[in-house]
Amino acid sequence: MLKYKKIKTSGKARRGQLITAHGTVELPTFMAVGTAGTVKAMSVEAIKRTGTQIVLGNTYHLMLRPSAERVADFGGLHKFMNWPGPILTDSGGFQVMSLSGLRKITEKGTTFQSHLSGEKFELTPERSIEIQHLLDADISMAFDECLPYPSPEKKVAESMRRSMRWAGRSKDAFRDRDGYGLFGIVQGGMIKDLRLESVKALKKIGFDGYAVGGLAVGEGQEKMFEVLDYTVPELPDDKPHYLMGVGRPSDIVGAVARGIDMFDCVMPSRSGRTGQAFTSHGVLNIRNSCYQDDHSPLDANCTCPACTHYTRGYLHHLFRCGEILGAMLMTEHNLRFYQNLMAKIREAIEADQMADFVAAFQEKYKDDRKM
Amino acid sequence: MLKYKKIKTSGKARRGQLITAHGTVELPTFMAVGTAGTVKAMSVEAIKRTGTQIVLGNTYHLMLRPSAERVADFGGLHKFMNWPGPILTDSGGFQVMSLSGLRKITEKGTTFQSHLSGEKFELTPERSIEIQHLLDADISMAFDECLPYPSPEKKVAESMRRSMRWAGRSKDAFRDRDGYGLFGIVQGGMIKDLRLESVKALKKIGFDGYAVGGLAVGEGQEKMFEVLDYTVPELPDDKPHYLMGVGRPSDIVGAVARGIDMFDCVMPSRSGRTGQAFTSHGVLNIRNSCYQDDHSPLDANCTCPACTHYTRGYLHHLFRCGEILGAMLMTEHNLRFYQNLMAKIREAIEADQMADFVAAFQEKYKDDRKM
Repeated sequence: MLKYKKIKTSGKARRGQLITAHGTVELPTFMAVGTAGTVKAMSVEAIKRTGTQIVLGNTYHLMLRPSAERVADFGGLHKFMNWPGPILTDSGGFQVMSLSGLRKITEKGTTFQSHLSGEKFELTPERSIEIQHLLDADISMAFDECLPYPSPEKKVAESMRRSMRWAGRSKDAFRDRDGYGLFGIVQGGMIKDLRLESVKALKKIGFDGYAVGGLAVGEGQEKMFEVLDYTVPELPDDKPHYLMGVGRPSDIVGAVARGIDMFDCVMPSRSGRTGQAFTSHGVLNIRNSCYQDDHSPLDANCTCPACTHYTRGYLHHLFRCGEILGAMLMTEHNLRFYQNLMAKIREAIEADQMADFVAAFQEKYKDDRKM
Repeated sequence: MLKYKKIKTSGKARRGQLITAHGTVELPTFMAVGTAGTVKAMSVEAIKRTGTQIVLGNTYHLMLRPSAERVADFGGLHKFMNWPGPILTDSGGFQVMSLSGLRKITEKGTTFQSHLSGEKFELTPERSIEIQHLLDADISMAFDECLPYPSPEKKVAESMRRSMRWAGRSKDAFRDRDGYGLFGIVQGGMIKDLRLESVKALKKIGFDGYAVGGLAVGEGQEKMFEVLDYTVPELPDDKPHYLMGVGRPSDIVGAVARGIDMFDCVMPSRSGRTGQAFTSHGVLNIRNSCYQDDHSPLDANCTCPACTHYTRGYLHHLFRCGEILGAMLMTEHNLRFYQNLMAKIREAIEADQMADFVAAFQEKYKDDRKM
């Protein structure tokens, strides 16, 4: 069981707290993606410095390497990776679809071949929940199927209904304990009736939190916001709302304004490794030769190590040479940018100025769609 | 001009201090290799944590990327890479031989093609010293030629004599300032008469320190120690002695016992990136599957982050997944191991127990020749 406290609202935006076995998460929050038991290129010290409160682990990756049983032997994922704060794990469903080969879906679950070894694995709602239990996730996700976009309506409906049956089996398999919880995932593609049917099914089962899945799959921001506009108001108001795999800063700002509390995305960390930086003036790619002789900091408004101690010219040099320090500094900067954004969003809601915040953000930060 | 202070000796081993424009270096010391303006996979914070006092920069790499003039524009290498301590730069000669294509050596210097762009460059004693000045190196190295081993005696003699003429031109080109200095490099292969002739030539020119070059090129530890046995006693006693590109822990211990004060080697950092760890019990490769379920720390006698917060099983997992954090943690561990070794060596000399230290080290740490 997880405790959720709503502190304040501003329009539909919610300032809340989620109390887990490994600490309290201030909402809205952005979760750093730590796929294989590490946020890529980041020491735990650096993760903490960014203001990150909660880390996401990927069931699919961890079940293949080093295996859930092994992580459990090491005392769970917190201990294994030396992260003392809360951890959310996904169910593995999304990566089975996007990464593995030769997968087969039945009512029971999925069988698939590891993208690493070709070895055959089975993932069912029961096994996914068991794995997440072995990993010691504070927040487990119900096992679901995430379809590619676009998919035919008939397929979306069938898949959503199976995911809802899997959600029920996930709930049955989940071992409830204080500070631990299970989230259900709304599916149904871009079809309003299916989304609402999905919400209804999940509410009937009852979860500690409600996620919106199947978005950020190429449908564009407008369609995504449209889905949120009719879906989020139907979610239980006394539980946290999580938009999975999202997103760009402007996606996050818009989704908070529509009642979302939690986010995760590889964008800040992956961009950090490829040289894309989020700054208070928009995105820039530090590999661009225009930065070769630039003596200014990456972002004069940022206090991260990259911006405090180095020039754009040095960061450009690191990326040009393929130096690991470039990925380290830039990932920390991008995560700091995201966490600073979340902190400002929380302040705006507390001051009941979310609408002003959204307007000012849209005015100032125009170009993150380019990413 | 650099100040060298001899504090204490134990046999031929010397406990000293080298006072530079960017701080005092306690000798004997191991210099971390920061080829392209970064010690690979290490934040400056982490470099400092290891006890590293002085960093080495590579003239060849920095002249190609980002260029010496550019580093000077950024205020010198210390400022560019945010390393406040002393920096030694090599002359570029060694890398011209080992990395570049289509090189040509004349009395004037060398012309070569960049291994990166194919672009043609010239490096002469005068240009090498100018580059090192632009980089703002506390310690510059005379420009020399380093031959492959073995080379015919006639070639070794000719090359050494040319390097000695280049040493004279390096001295003429060097702009002396307080806290900055120039080291000469002894060449002459494995041939005693040539080594002694080289020492004589360098002493006649006069340098702030004396390096032994052309070793650790495949000749083996025995031959290397033989060269040191007859070379080091001829070096000025009131100047620091630097053994270039060395080496394994046992090389360092043996060389200090023969009167060497300074070392540099890519071994701890490169090994750190490939999974080789130096421990108090010898070397191990963390990729080995025997560590998959190992709950013990990398080295129970070490207090670095890798050994304090993680298991061998976790480090194994990081390397198996190709995670950057593996390289970060392991590089820091290896550099810490080297710096701890240097600290123990300094203590042993201070207590006049270097011979005992060497004996105990050889007894305990048997297998670093496997590396």
